[in-house]
Amino acid sequence: MSASRRVVLLAGGVGGSTFARGLREHLRRTDPHARITIVANTGDDMWLTGVRLQPDVDSLLYALAGVNDTERGWGRAGESERVSAELRAWGAGWPWFTLGDLDLGTHLARTGWLREGAGVAEVVRRLCGRWPIGAEILPMTEAEVDTIVTVRDGADERPMHFQEWWTRYRASLEPVRFDNPGVAEAEPAPGVARAIADADVVVVAPSNPVVSVGPIVAVPGIRVALRETDAPVVGVSPIIGGRAVRGMAEVCLAAIGAECSASGVAQLYGARDDGGLLDAWLVAEEDAGAAPAVDALGIRAGVAPLWMRDLETSAALAAAALELARRGSAGR
Amino acid sequence: MSASRRVVLLAGGVGGSTFARGLREHLRRTDPHARITIVANTGDDMWLTGVRLQPDVDSLLYALAGVNDTERGWGRAGESERVSAELRAWGAGWPWFTLGDLDLGTHLARTGWLREGAGVAEVVRRLCGRWPIGAEILPMTEAEVDTIVTVRDGADERPMHFQEWWTRYRASLEPVRFDNPGVAEAEPAPGVARAIADADVVVVAPSNPVVSVGPIVAVPGIRVALRETDAPVVGVSPIIGGRAVRGMAEVCLAAIGAECSASGVAQLYGARDDGGLLDAWLVAEEDAGAAPAVDALGIRAGVAPLWMRDLETSAALAAAALELARRGSAGR
Repeated sequence: MSASRRVVLLAGGVGGSTFARGLREHLRRTDPHARITIVANTGDDMWLTGVRLQPDVDSLLYALAGVNDTERGWGRAGESERVSAELRAWGAGWPWFTLGDLDLGTHLARTGWLREGAGVAEVVRRLCGRWPIGAEILPMTEAEVDTIVTVRDGADERPMHFQEWWTRYRASLEPVRFDNPGVAEAEPAPGVARAIADADVVVVAPSNPVVSVGPIVAVPGIRVALRETDAPVVGVSPIIGGRAVRGMAEVCLAAIGAECSASGVAQLYGARDDGGLLDAWLVAEEDAGAAPAVDALGIRAGVAPLWMRDLETSAALAAAALELARRGSAGR
Repeated sequence: MSASRRVVLLAGGVGGSTFARGLREHLRRTDPHARITIVANTGDDMWLTGVRLQPDVDSLLYALAGVNDTERGWGRAGESERVSAELRAWGAGWPWFTLGDLDLGTHLARTGWLREGAGVAEVVRRLCGRWPIGAEILPMTEAEVDTIVTVRDGADERPMHFQEWWTRYRASLEPVRFDNPGVAEAEPAPGVARAIADADVVVVAPSNPVVSVGPIVAVPGIRVALRETDAPVVGVSPIIGGRAVRGMAEVCLAAIGAECSASGVAQLYGARDDGGLLDAWLVAEEDAGAAPAVDALGIRAGVAPLWMRDLETSAALAAAALELARRGSAGR
């Protein structure tokens, strides 16, 4: 048995946090001193009525703290919306965007600390200090990187903030392009490059490849760190049976010309040996037929049940991903 | 009968808003087309966790809109404190300062508009547009003017924000001095100087002379406008029977070396003919004996019941103040 592992997880919000809970559970059982560092997408962070929101950081935090709303699938359990109702009455903010009261407490704490001059990583560290979450969450960058969706509007195209497209229009407007202005100049947040360099394994969560994982690996310093680390990089497919598990990954993939399939996403990420992201790629049993196409990309394919129905299946999925990485690593 | 009057009221929060309601009621009965412009103290406005608070503007707004908490004496009726409980759990903000959820909606609307670039007067105008309040509220200035209290701390002195002294310490620390840094450079908010110039009467509400009325008249352009207007300036004493009606005016007056009496506050404000603020000063029946001392200052004293127990007594008080101003005006 080797020393306790250092696991780095690249993750978006909802899918990422479900996987993160499974990963933590698996490691608690098998390697209780393992260290989990989550590099969180901050590409959908935003300012709303002067308040800083970090949807993916908060989803990860709430899920790992066990204070998330599991029925609704996002936000805090036991939430209320008194302040949002007032904002609507004032005609302020985005009437279609509901800030829960408990959630707003997080946003205000964050905003206050930021306004006092704390860095984004330090703010996330403070947020993570409230509950024993058994993991470290790092923002991918401290720079403000937005996600802008350009949608088709009749014969025209128009840009809108990702949250407007996602929440207001439920991704019903056809996207033409996704941009993360500023990401090319963004540096990894303090600790991110070091965590990747020191990792024993890097896992890419089954998050939206375009708007969750995409912004993370678009940070140049993160891409370099992923290229240079000795750790194997294993991804978990967000596609099961040719369909996106959640969210609107299908339309996102279509917009950037990627195929919505297990091998299509593998191709999008690319083989590490070929300048891409992945050493290994875990596909669903339903997509076992895609394994040869993945292997042909220079990415070692693995097959496992990918549905995360509960903590047990999520932990089993994390185990399968780590096992695939180990096999890949041993083979290098 | 003259044309409908244009009444300007200089006011702080709680005392000012009770008087404002009475003034509005009196004018509704006697001069329904009268225009009320309230110049509100903004000296205790503040930033808290990145959010802009305007306690006196909000007190005036809520009271005139009838959505204020009349039992507690401040804030919104039907208030809850879910977000504040979260902020305490996060260790963010001031744990002793409770932001109600409904109230926070106001602060967030205001903050969002300010962050979008709207001026303070425009923001207050939007806030006032939600309900038919029958008055215009103008911030005294758009500049950020704080109120800093220097308190005695053993042999030392130390400065603290007014809200900390007021809310956290309930004014129990002995104040040595009150300062409004920036007020000497502050300009009246758009509309303030014009409203005073065009007024038929200016009323100084029975608000705290040191921390509510004091900052307003410390804005140089407001002082000039008050000196130059043709309108009589009538004040209502915040002292009844030698004691401050509410709040901590007594300790504030002591700190600046003013006597806590009807004539003491008149002396603090000074006669307009003598470079001061007042043409006339309404004192309580309990303080009728102070009238000669007030007259001796060159300020016409009037005597009336000053307790504002309900809308009726507040309206009667407003009537008495306007009547005293009329008499003073006729006599000029």
